[in-house]
Amino acid sequence: MSTKLMDHVALLCTVFAAGVGLGYLATTYLPRRPASAIDLSTFEIERITKAFDNEMCIVGTLRGRPNEKMLLVLQKQKFAAGDACQILANLSLKQIHANDVYSNHIGVLSGDNDALRVTMIYPATPAHIAKHTEQTFRFVTETQSLYETVTRPYIESIPKDKIQWVYNILDRTQEADKILLEDNDPTTGFLLLPDTKWSRFSHMESLYVLALVLDKSIRSVRDLTGDHLPLLRNVRDQSLALIATKYGVAANSMRIFVHYQPSYYHFHIHFAHIKVPFGIFTGKAILLDDIIYNLSHDPAYYQKATLSFVVGEQQHAALYKAVLAHGE
Amino acid sequence: MSTKLMDHVALLCTVFAAGVGLGYLATTYLPRRPASAIDLSTFEIERITKAFDNEMCIVGTLRGRPNEKMLLVLQKQKFAAGDACQILANLSLKQIHANDVYSNHIGVLSGDNDALRVTMIYPATPAHIAKHTEQTFRFVTETQSLYETVTRPYIESIPKDKIQWVYNILDRTQEADKILLEDNDPTTGFLLLPDTKWSRFSHMESLYVLALVLDKSIRSVRDLTGDHLPLLRNVRDQSLALIATKYGVAANSMRIFVHYQPSYYHFHIHFAHIKVPFGIFTGKAILLDDIIYNLSHDPAYYQKATLSFVVGEQQHAALYKAVLAHGE
Repeated sequence: MSTKLMDHVALLCTVFAAGVGLGYLATTYLPRRPASAIDLSTFEIERITKAFDNEMCIVGTLRGRPNEKMLLVLQKQKFAAGDACQILANLSLKQIHANDVYSNHIGVLSGDNDALRVTMIYPATPAHIAKHTEQTFRFVTETQSLYETVTRPYIESIPKDKIQWVYNILDRTQEADKILLEDNDPTTGFLLLPDTKWSRFSHMESLYVLALVLDKSIRSVRDLTGDHLPLLRNVRDQSLALIATKYGVAANSMRIFVHYQPSYYHFHIHFAHIKVPFGIFTGKAILLDDIIYNLSHDPAYYQKATLSFVVGEQQHAALYKAVLAHGE
Repeated sequence: MSTKLMDHVALLCTVFAAGVGLGYLATTYLPRRPASAIDLSTFEIERITKAFDNEMCIVGTLRGRPNEKMLLVLQKQKFAAGDACQILANLSLKQIHANDVYSNHIGVLSGDNDALRVTMIYPATPAHIAKHTEQTFRFVTETQSLYETVTRPYIESIPKDKIQWVYNILDRTQEADKILLEDNDPTTGFLLLPDTKWSRFSHMESLYVLALVLDKSIRSVRDLTGDHLPLLRNVRDQSLALIATKYGVAANSMRIFVHYQPSYYHFHIHFAHIKVPFGIFTGKAILLDDIIYNLSHDPAYYQKATLSFVVGEQQHAALYKAVLAHGE
C-alpha cells in the first residue's frame, strides 16, 4: 500500500464523515432501499462443500424448486486502506479479554457494508459443485522410478490439444499484443507475458509475469538437464532486467519459481513479486535458483532426484488416482 | 471440516431460525444492547500501518489525549461451517454482473455479526507500532561465501540466552508434560512436541508438531552433512509413526520441512498437516525429503549450496542490514 494513500486517509475520513451524515438523513427521510435483488429467504441449505479461510461454498435449493441446485460461493473481502474510515464508523467492540496494554474484542459491524463477494451459480451442475468442494490433498514422494512408471505415462496420456493455447501464444496467433519480451533463439528463447493472476497492473506488489520457453520438448522440471542452463539463465536475467526497467521492481523483490506438478506440461517459469502469497508453497513451487544450482553441479539431477509434491484429488484427478493405485 | 458437521447444518439452521425469531422479539421488546464498551467515536486516524489480506493495523489517538497512541489490529474472521445459517439469514445481495448461470454480487450483512477480531494496544509504544507495520522483504541468494562472511557471523553474534528456552525443554525443566515422543540417543535423538501454532488440538487439519534434535551443534540446515542422515531419517520415521497412531493422520497428509532462515538457531523440524497454509513458502521452507535426498547424494551439499531465502526488514533486522550492506 502506498504511503501517500495512508497519508490521505485522515482527509478522506472527514469527507467520509460528511457522507455518513448525509446517509443518515437519507435513511431517515427517504424510503429504505429495496430488498435484495435476489431473494434468498427461501434458500434451503443442503450442504456446505467448503469452508476454508476466506471462502465458503454452500449448495442448496430454492423452496418449490427442489431439482435445481443453487451454488453460492461467498468470499470475505480483503482489507484495503481505503476501508478504514467506514469500518471504524460502523464498528462496535465487545471486549473478551484484557491484559496490561492489550485487550481483545469481537468487532461488530453495523450499518451498510460490503462484507462479502458472492458468486451464484444457478442452476449448478454436479461439475460446478465438484469444482467448489473441498478436496483431499496428498504428498507424493516421487522417485525416479515412480516418475518413469506413473507420472511420465500420465503426462504423455494428456491430449495434445490441452496445451494448444500455449502453442497459439508461441506462434503469435493469440495474445501477441500482450508480449512483454521475446527472444526468438530456438534453444534459449522465450516469451514473457503478464500472468492472468496479476489482477491490478498498477499494483506492483501483485506483479506476476510468466515466461514460456520456445523449446516444446521440455514438459516439466523433470526434463531439464545441464544443457538447459543457458536457457534458464537467459530467461532469468533478461526477465529480471525488463521487470526492473519497465516496472521499477528490483530483482531481490521477485520470487522466481516453477511448479511441479505444473497445471500444464509446457515448461514455464513464474516471476512473482515477493509479496504474492499464492502458488509459492513448498511441495509445488521450486525456486529457479535452486534448479540452476542443482543442474550446475549434477546435469542429470532432475532425472535422478526424488521430488516431493502435493496432488489434489480433483485438481490432479488422474495423477492422484494413478499414484495412489501404485501404492504411494 | 468434518462431513458430519456439514450434514448437521440443515438441522442447526432450523434451530437457528427459531433463535432468530426469538432474537427479533427480544430486539423489539427489550431495551437495545448497550453501546460498545470502548468508545471509538472519538478515535482519530493518524496512519494505517498495514492493510494486507485479512489484517489491517490502524494507529490513532482519542480526542483530547493526543500523546497516547492507540493501535488497533483488525482481523477478518475466517469462515467456519457453523456460520452458514447466520450469514444467509442476514445476507442481502446487490448484483453487479450476470452471465449465463453465473452471477456476481456484493453481499451486504445486516443485523448482528462478529465480523472482526480486534486487538487494541493502548497506549502503544513505537515498538508496538513497528511490529504492526508492513515490512519490506527481500530475496537473498546466499552463496557458500556469503554464508561464511555474513550469515554465520550473524548467527554466532546472537546471544546464547536467546535459545535458552529450547535448552530448558531439552533438559526437561520446561514443558516436560507436553512431550509427545522422546528418543534420548545423543546423536540421533530428539523430542517431539505440539507447536504453539497448533491452536485447536481436536482439529487434525491444523495439526502442527515440532521436533527438536538433542544435538546442540546443529544450528541450521547449513550445518547438516551426510553424517546426519540417520538423525534425519529417525526423526522423520518415528514422528510420522506417532502421528499416524496417536492422531490418525497418514504420512502422506503431512508436510515435513525446516525453515531457512529459521526463527532460532537450534535445529528443528516442522511436521504440519498438508492443509496448514502458513510458513510453507519456498524461500523459507525446505522439505525434509529434499534435504535427505541431497545429503544422500552429496554429503557436503548444504555447506556448498547456494540457498535462496526471504529476509524481512523487521523480522530479521540484523541479518537484513548485514546482507544488504554486503551488496546483495
